[in-house]
Amino acid sequence: MIQKLTSAERTAQMARLHGWQTVAERDAIQRKFEFADFNAAFGFMTRVAIKAQEMDHHPEWFNVYNKVDITLSTHEADGVTARDIELASFIDSITA
Amino acid sequence: MIQKLTSAERTAQMARLHGWQTVAERDAIQRKFEFADFNAAFGFMTRVAIKAQEMDHHPEWFNVYNKVDITLSTHEADGVTARDIELASFIDSITA
Repeated sequence: MIQKLTSAERTAQMARLHGWQTVAERDAIQRKFEFADFNAAFGFMTRVAIKAQEMDHHPEWFNVYNKVDITLSTHEADGVTARDIELASFIDSITA
Repeated sequence: MIQKLTSAERTAQMARLHGWQTVAERDAIQRKFEFADFNAAFGFMTRVAIKAQEMDHHPEWFNVYNKVDITLSTHEADGVTARDIELASFIDSITA
């Protein structure tokens, strides 16, 4: 059973990410992306989808045209875990 | 310049669609989908994305795991147009 990160672990892990913010109302992290157009946005989503499936850990996300908003949280732990950090880190790596 | 459907046109067109509802706060239509799993949901999204790009008319959508919520509206017309009905109709055809 995966555990929520402690406050200290989370602060340390978040510092290694780029542009991710904690969500006000719930234990989750979020980042907003903007691409050149829909093709670029959906291409990005496809790369994230393949990684998510490989990890068996899936994002909550919203897309309209060139914008993608991603929220990460771990359902089983009811909060942010190392899995969310790993997926966020992958996402950062393909948008650097 | 594409025009918003009149109330009568919209009623007639909506009757040909399956499960689409008007959105309360704005001039848009929405349908919620549920699939077997993420693979099925994202596969569906990919088919819609390719059609949307071909039409140059893109959805607003939210996905988490096996759920996809789609909202359609035409930005240039500030409301529902024949383009939204066409895309909704395609979406219906691949989820029949």
